[in-house]
Amino acid sequence: MGAFVTQTYHAKIYITLRPSVLDPAGTAVQSGLSHMGYRNIDHVRIGKYVELEIQAADEAEATRQIDRVCAQLLANPVIENYRFDLKPQAVSLGGTP
Amino acid sequence: MGAFVTQTYHAKIYITLRPSVLDPAGTAVQSGLSHMGYRNIDHVRIGKYVELEIQAADEAEATRQIDRVCAQLLANPVIENYRFDLKPQAVSLGGTP
Repeated sequence: MGAFVTQTYHAKIYITLRPSVLDPAGTAVQSGLSHMGYRNIDHVRIGKYVELEIQAADEAEATRQIDRVCAQLLANPVIENYRFDLKPQAVSLGGTP
Repeated sequence: MGAFVTQTYHAKIYITLRPSVLDPAGTAVQSGLSHMGYRNIDHVRIGKYVELEIQAADEAEATRQIDRVCAQLLANPVIENYRFDLKPQAVSLGGTP
């Protein structure tokens, strides 16, 4: 319709602490699990999982923007790593309840 | 060697708020992105991403235990959904730095 045609992409973003960074929350969960009897579980690391939708001209542009958003806002690059998957959203004409 | 041989599995667990549950953190991030100029991003939802290692006799046993751990400790089933992937860990004889 307009001058720009955009596509909606669904992004799944995984943010994890760098391996060298201590994870007190993960340690607490592991200790809780051990108290519950799960002594066979270790290396618990807790990160963030972000889903969002982005409108962009193409996948390269969406990738570029998500990468910037991760580095600037979602993750702390000093202590965290991030990675993400992008998937074009199917165009839906009806609403979902 | 012993009476029981176990295999180590690496689990990736994704915990998300149920779609009907409000996500104030996601809304805050979306608002921040909008202020930064990213008005093409919406439906931001923030969840948890947990990695852990579990020792179990087989994949079915590991799956059963991770499912219980999610329902009992990691997720709040009233407001959160969870899903996970399991992968057998390659046996490593050397250490990684």
